[in-house]
Amino acid sequence: MRRYSGERLCKKCFLKSIENKVQVTIGKYKMFKITDKIAVAVSGGKDSVGLLHILSKIEADFPKSSLCAITVDEGIKGYRDEAVKVAAQNCSKLGIEQTVVSFKELFGYTLDEIVNKTQSKKMTPCAYCGVFRRRALNIAARKVGADKIATAHTLDDEVQTFLLNIVHGDPLRTARSGPIFGAEREGLVPRAKPLCEVLERESALYAFVKRISFQEMPCPYAGEALRNDIRNMLNRLEEKHPGMKYTIFSSMEKIRQSMKATIEETALSKCEECGEPTTGALCQACQILQKLRNA
Amino acid sequence: MRRYSGERLCKKCFLKSIENKVQVTIGKYKMFKITDKIAVAVSGGKDSVGLLHILSKIEADFPKSSLCAITVDEGIKGYRDEAVKVAAQNCSKLGIEQTVVSFKELFGYTLDEIVNKTQSKKMTPCAYCGVFRRRALNIAARKVGADKIATAHTLDDEVQTFLLNIVHGDPLRTARSGPIFGAEREGLVPRAKPLCEVLERESALYAFVKRISFQEMPCPYAGEALRNDIRNMLNRLEEKHPGMKYTIFSSMEKIRQSMKATIEETALSKCEECGEPTTGALCQACQILQKLRNA
Repeated sequence: MRRYSGERLCKKCFLKSIENKVQVTIGKYKMFKITDKIAVAVSGGKDSVGLLHILSKIEADFPKSSLCAITVDEGIKGYRDEAVKVAAQNCSKLGIEQTVVSFKELFGYTLDEIVNKTQSKKMTPCAYCGVFRRRALNIAARKVGADKIATAHTLDDEVQTFLLNIVHGDPLRTARSGPIFGAEREGLVPRAKPLCEVLERESALYAFVKRISFQEMPCPYAGEALRNDIRNMLNRLEEKHPGMKYTIFSSMEKIRQSMKATIEETALSKCEECGEPTTGALCQACQILQKLRNA
Repeated sequence: MRRYSGERLCKKCFLKSIENKVQVTIGKYKMFKITDKIAVAVSGGKDSVGLLHILSKIEADFPKSSLCAITVDEGIKGYRDEAVKVAAQNCSKLGIEQTVVSFKELFGYTLDEIVNKTQSKKMTPCAYCGVFRRRALNIAARKVGADKIATAHTLDDEVQTFLLNIVHGDPLRTARSGPIFGAEREGLVPRAKPLCEVLERESALYAFVKRISFQEMPCPYAGEALRNDIRNMLNRLEEKHPGMKYTIFSSMEKIRQSMKATIEETALSKCEECGEPTTGALCQACQILQKLRNA
């Protein structure tokens, strides 16, 4: 039963309802053109593998578009190696070409090595991983000639990040992200989030009902303390007031629209070291790499 | 001990620190002019009575300004009648003139009567009370010739309301409020919130340490379920991450500044029935009164 709408759906109708919702989201935010080559970021987890299945189904109706998968291997022993295999199985089942890029090959270090080198520092593994993963996705997407990157951020992820930005005192970050963003910046492949209006629990249920194989283990480094607090708090609120996550999402969109006008797009230049797009002289990835080399 | 800053203060220094903070807040947001007649909204609770004491101390250094108190008697038997007396005691002790206005005299109904008439309706007592209390304050402030109304909203109140607006899907309300607002609208006496950067627990401690008498009982109608959930959640977060309420406050201010530019001030007209400022033909108070008369 879907508590926020009161619907009760059979398995088939539930799957259809998720696929329809994703299609509506794609249309609403004009995420893709009918000629786009879309690179789906597939980690091997429930959300991204589910997204791959959904997009593959939707894309079948658009012969001029094409789909491929990008998997970033961060180098997390006993975790990501498994996930990469699961992602590959799903891709081959769906007949979708998969490109795997690794932190090691792109940056010279696995995440395990980075964590070892930086244990006493202020940044969490997630913070390093985020910078390098975004960069890796961008490099891989350009390599395969993709027009867009599709990521599997769910409604829960989006709402959590929004509140996290508020709680961190950095709400303007919200204005710079969104269901689709980065569309007109040189060197950056635009990103779309087709699951941004799907609850995480429904994304999980989709994978479960559809008997999709995915990596079930959580990342051993996961555990941003504050995000966990906010996740729990949101789940408690949603439990008591069904539909609340959607209301927060709509507030976020209203704030985003209202702030957009006043926020100047920062001009992007090329990083002096790697040539990737950045707002400063040296991109964040190169700044981190410099510190790692000296560590 | 002040957890967000690590300070440990004796009683005297604690009182001084709160008074200084309020003075800094007043200056930062340019709340008052040196010639202002300031009407403090004094309910008789810890925050408003404390504010009266603090402002009376600060105002002593500004001979061209003056202070008076407004108490709104909503008509809540066994609760507000007590509070009105406590407010009066504090005013006479400080030599501040108090004006009491009641819902009954202004609108024809006590809050008790309104609650009785509307029990099955969708609006909570707090919602009715809010509309009429704001109106009563405005009428009383004009009557005594006040240039500004000072209310005792604390940092906690402000941050709770901000999150409540987000959770209700109405974040633009945030842009229309703030530490000082209503400054340039005809018929509305501008409002200032000198305690907006003081934690509620420090406001309570101020009243306690200064041995101020105040109404300790909570309002019998209080209990907006969602606000209570948000209050508890914020207190839990602040407990784990001291300073977080301040960070959320600063996010709120950033969002407010950034949204202000895109939000057009709605022009105010006069209510067809009572002549008070409103955005529609009939003001909210008169709309409610019309329904009450037909109930």
